[in-house]
Amino acid sequence: MPTHHTVRSFDEELKYLEAKIAEMGGHAERMIERAINAVVHDDLHLASEVIAEDVILDESEREIDEKAVTIIAKRQPMAVDLREIIGAIRISADLERVGDMGKNIAKRAPAIAETRQPATFYRGLEAFASLALNQLKEVLDAYASRSVERIDAVRERDEEIDAMYTSLFRELLTYMMEDPRNITACTHLLFCAKNIERIGDHATNIAETLHYIITGSYLATERPRDDLTYKLGVSGLTEK
Amino acid sequence: MPTHHTVRSFDEELKYLEAKIAEMGGHAERMIERAINAVVHDDLHLASEVIAEDVILDESEREIDEKAVTIIAKRQPMAVDLREIIGAIRISADLERVGDMGKNIAKRAPAIAETRQPATFYRGLEAFASLALNQLKEVLDAYASRSVERIDAVRERDEEIDAMYTSLFRELLTYMMEDPRNITACTHLLFCAKNIERIGDHATNIAETLHYIITGSYLATERPRDDLTYKLGVSGLTEK
Repeated sequence: MPTHHTVRSFDEELKYLEAKIAEMGGHAERMIERAINAVVHDDLHLASEVIAEDVILDESEREIDEKAVTIIAKRQPMAVDLREIIGAIRISADLERVGDMGKNIAKRAPAIAETRQPATFYRGLEAFASLALNQLKEVLDAYASRSVERIDAVRERDEEIDAMYTSLFRELLTYMMEDPRNITACTHLLFCAKNIERIGDHATNIAETLHYIITGSYLATERPRDDLTYKLGVSGLTEK
Repeated sequence: MPTHHTVRSFDEELKYLEAKIAEMGGHAERMIERAINAVVHDDLHLASEVIAEDVILDESEREIDEKAVTIIAKRQPMAVDLREIIGAIRISADLERVGDMGKNIAKRAPAIAETRQPATFYRGLEAFASLALNQLKEVLDAYASRSVERIDAVRERDEEIDAMYTSLFRELLTYMMEDPRNITACTHLLFCAKNIERIGDHATNIAETLHYIITGSYLATERPRDDLTYKLGVSGLTEK
């Protein structure tokens, strides 16, 4: 991979941005995987490692931003090249936020470790994180191959994430109602689930940016980035 | 305010972006105010109006993005002018997210309306929203006046937001523990409080972007955008 100093041609500069995005994507994925492991296995040492790693993504985003502005100023790119650069700025912002989600999840590990919920719940949380991470991987693969076909698949799968989030949300409320001693840990778990749901949103954002890079146009019917749990009112839940 | 068609000079184009950002800021502020009113006064009609208004910010962000890319391609700006344009892209993304927070809060109004919490709590929520909105207003004023001095004030005030959020979070957990029938509504209120806290984060992001626009450099010691409630473990709460 070329470094700052060896970059020469415009093409190499664009490739550098792309490689940096891929690197950020891999790092963000690992942060989420490790954060979930920390929560599921009460591993507070791992949690603190994840929190410390977040700075790497902050620095990468900043580097991409600075690089992008330098390239625009120096090369004055047009059309698709300009979109590639603007797109890299946007995607790196989304990946930095995914890293924040990992950090947020890891930070809640100590409070969650104080009371255990049923093992099935943690399996649900792991499955949910896998689903969201899979979305992220898919969209990063689509970005690497500049495949407009793969964008729709990512956006459609977002509905699965919403459904799984609603189900986890409902489950957690039930545990809270069953025993008030579960309330604090479950509240933190609710926020973890919300963070995972937001990873799906970021994957959708990246899919939309990729569409813009490839076609120059915005997606007409934007998939609503939606949290459907707001529909879970008291009446719906106490009946169960 | 000039429209797309009357814009002629480069200066007018930059002024157009700036005016559009100011318009987005005003709209985002009103959305938050109205969303909080909807929750506090169980006004579900108002809530549905706020939800419908969100699309305006989505369209404004898109318009700014398209305009920004067109200006870069046509004018090939350097240094501060380029930073102004890149900055407008970033700030409009933050304001669009603030609008999302308003929409998210409004969506939870029906579930929250099903059970009432003590009146003092709603006053706390209103005060918290005022604090966050004040931060947003301050940073938008700083943007309008390109004042680097006012940036520090905004960043320091972020700590007040964190403290108030932690206090509201703690209060809500207490209501949940006192009576399980409060759990669903309080969970939705927790997410509303979290959304307000994130408005403060967006104000901080805008302050950092403004610093970049004015100086061309990034803030050395980034204020951690931090949610401190993760420290609220079981042991700390059951004692109260």
